Amino acid sequence: MKGAVLYAPGDVRLTERDEPKLIKPTDAIIKMSATCVCGSDLWPYRGIEPVKGPAPMGHEYVGIVEEVGREVRTVKPGQFVVGSFFASDNTCEICRAGYQSSCVHRESMGALGAQAEHLRVPLADGTLVPTRELPSAELVPDLLAASDVLGTGWFAAVAAEVGPGKTVAVVGDGAVGLLAVLAAKQLGAERVIAMSRHEPRQKLALEFGATDIVTERGDDGVARIKDLTNGLGAHSVIEAVGTQESMMQALRITRPGGHMGYVGVAHGVELPGRELFFSHAHLHGGPAPVRRFLPELVDLIWSRQIEPGKVFDLSLPLDQVAEGYRAMDERRAIKALLWP
Amino acid sequence: MKGAVLYAPGDVRLTERDEPKLIKPTDAIIKMSATCVCGSDLWPYRGIEPVKGPAPMGHEYVGIVEEVGREVRTVKPGQFVVGSFFASDNTCEICRAGYQSSCVHRESMGALGAQAEHLRVPLADGTLVPTRELPSAELVPDLLAASDVLGTGWFAAVAAEVGPGKTVAVVGDGAVGLLAVLAAKQLGAERVIAMSRHEPRQKLALEFGATDIVTERGDDGVARIKDLTNGLGAHSVIEAVGTQESMMQALRITRPGGHMGYVGVAHGVELPGRELFFSHAHLHGGPAPVRRFLPELVDLIWSRQIEPGKVFDLSLPLDQVAEGYRAMDERRAIKALLWP
Repeated sequence: MKGAVLYAPGDVRLTERDEPKLIKPTDAIIKMSATCVCGSDLWPYRGIEPVKGPAPMGHEYVGIVEEVGREVRTVKPGQFVVGSFFASDNTCEICRAGYQSSCVHRESMGALGAQAEHLRVPLADGTLVPTRELPSAELVPDLLAASDVLGTGWFAAVAAEVGPGKTVAVVGDGAVGLLAVLAAKQLGAERVIAMSRHEPRQKLALEFGATDIVTERGDDGVARIKDLTNGLGAHSVIEAVGTQESMMQALRITRPGGHMGYVGVAHGVELPGRELFFSHAHLHGGPAPVRRFLPELVDLIWSRQIEPGKVFDLSLPLDQVAEGYRAMDERRAIKALLWP
Repeated sequence: MKGAVLYAPGDVRLTERDEPKLIKPTDAIIKMSATCVCGSDLWPYRGIEPVKGPAPMGHEYVGIVEEVGREVRTVKPGQFVVGSFFASDNTCEICRAGYQSSCVHRESMGALGAQAEHLRVPLADGTLVPTRELPSAELVPDLLAASDVLGTGWFAAVAAEVGPGKTVAVVGDGAVGLLAVLAAKQLGAERVIAMSRHEPRQKLALEFGATDIVTERGDDGVARIKDLTNGLGAHSVIEAVGTQESMMQALRITRPGGHMGYVGVAHGVELPGRELFFSHAHLHGGPAPVRRFLPELVDLIWSRQIEPGKVFDLSLPLDQVAEGYRAMDERRAIKALLWP
């Protein structure tokens, strides 16, 4: 089958890869309906994370179940399924507490490479959420967004304790940040401030429910958020970048007693203990347990209450995967969808 | 009047200081009934925090109101009062959210020096909690403990979301750590693991409600807690030291989705972003908003449901303040009470 492989920074190619097979009796094989490029794929693409040999890429996927192992009970061939970037048993104590991305049996889907024609999904019953029937074509991008960026933005909003009456600030205008805006709106936030200096992203943020746009960054961005919040900072702050600068900006705009939810994979971040201590912020985040939210998100999409697929502003056949990476790297695209 | 002054690391003396006077119409003057030495007083005493000129010391206090400013409404001369280490108006938006130690008008009591015969308390109505009548003498140490160490341990337990069915681990066996054990017990924890290698402190921890004692530290301590928690870590972890080692130990024994409450004033702490990210822990802490808890804590003490004053294992006249610091510095005493 065809699948994307990263050979070196900047060098991603669609190549012939082995057809995946059932390995464990809890596995499923799915035929990909759609996949996409994630902001986190850009870390190794840019060489910020080391590239260890030729690496299969991609961890976002929706597709049709082709085959299941003999211990798979709930997922059946022919179903359309949405999964997430960690396979999880969904039965261990950590999963039951809602942290499926720290499941004691978790497996990284990224290592299996979802930017491909087929994919093996471990722990299929715990990982995959089938839709009630086959979706119509226009719903596929929305369901694909649920696989990671929507689920991650949603978790960030929940981690930041977004709710009615709250003022929310979002640091980061990638697909996750934009969908965190959507999540904040859905969760009843009174005011949602999107921090962005890119016009197309600002537009989408407003469409998703942002009430304010702040273009300033760093100290100026902090000052601007303070101005907008009676000098106190936001109740709920979402961090969706993962750099030192974005984490500090997020911490500094969280009011004492407020909540900061961070989902940008941390790169080179060191949080100064003293500033953290006196910030009085609540911190929570990490790899989003998307599986916790998937049933609800699939329902919201199915009933057309949300349209998270709008983040895909570039749509390419899988064999143009390299252009998808380039367009996102150069910020010409928010997020690239790939059709196998 | 007599008051403690730190002249240089290791050099604390009782000296003649100016009698405090009402400065603002919201001030009160109290005559000290009892005060004490805090673990955090040891940072400058040990030279780990710089000593800026001769500095009045102490921020824990209970006493009798002698005089109030013309705008003080609820606090009256003759009342016995308990206050905390930050004066707060208790009416601003941050106070109303329960974060009085980040009050927009907060004033540090440490700068005023509570290890003295008299003390000026700013924002008296917001800061001081009067008891229903004058307490009997044996309650005074308990009420004094509420002023900081009990309130701080309590906040740590609340920040760590201690509750019924939870396994709690406490890092730090100073007065705050020990009273966090008491708080965890009161808040209904199923299991309370105290980390301590000092026999008198272990004994007090057990008396306060610890169910397990762990003597190992660092990696061994982490492994031991994992052993005791099915490999997962504790639901709620309390950090009551403030060093890099103790913060990392606390983070590493918190299970994914668990809560870490930190109240040890951070010294030289840098939290590695990537480990924090993948820990999936909730973090919250900082200078305890003791005022939030004081009415409830005073009630628990008044009805003799808790005896937090047991942390005072050394009791000295104020003029032996230097011996109080020495005994705590050398870990001969858990906490030194000073009688003016």
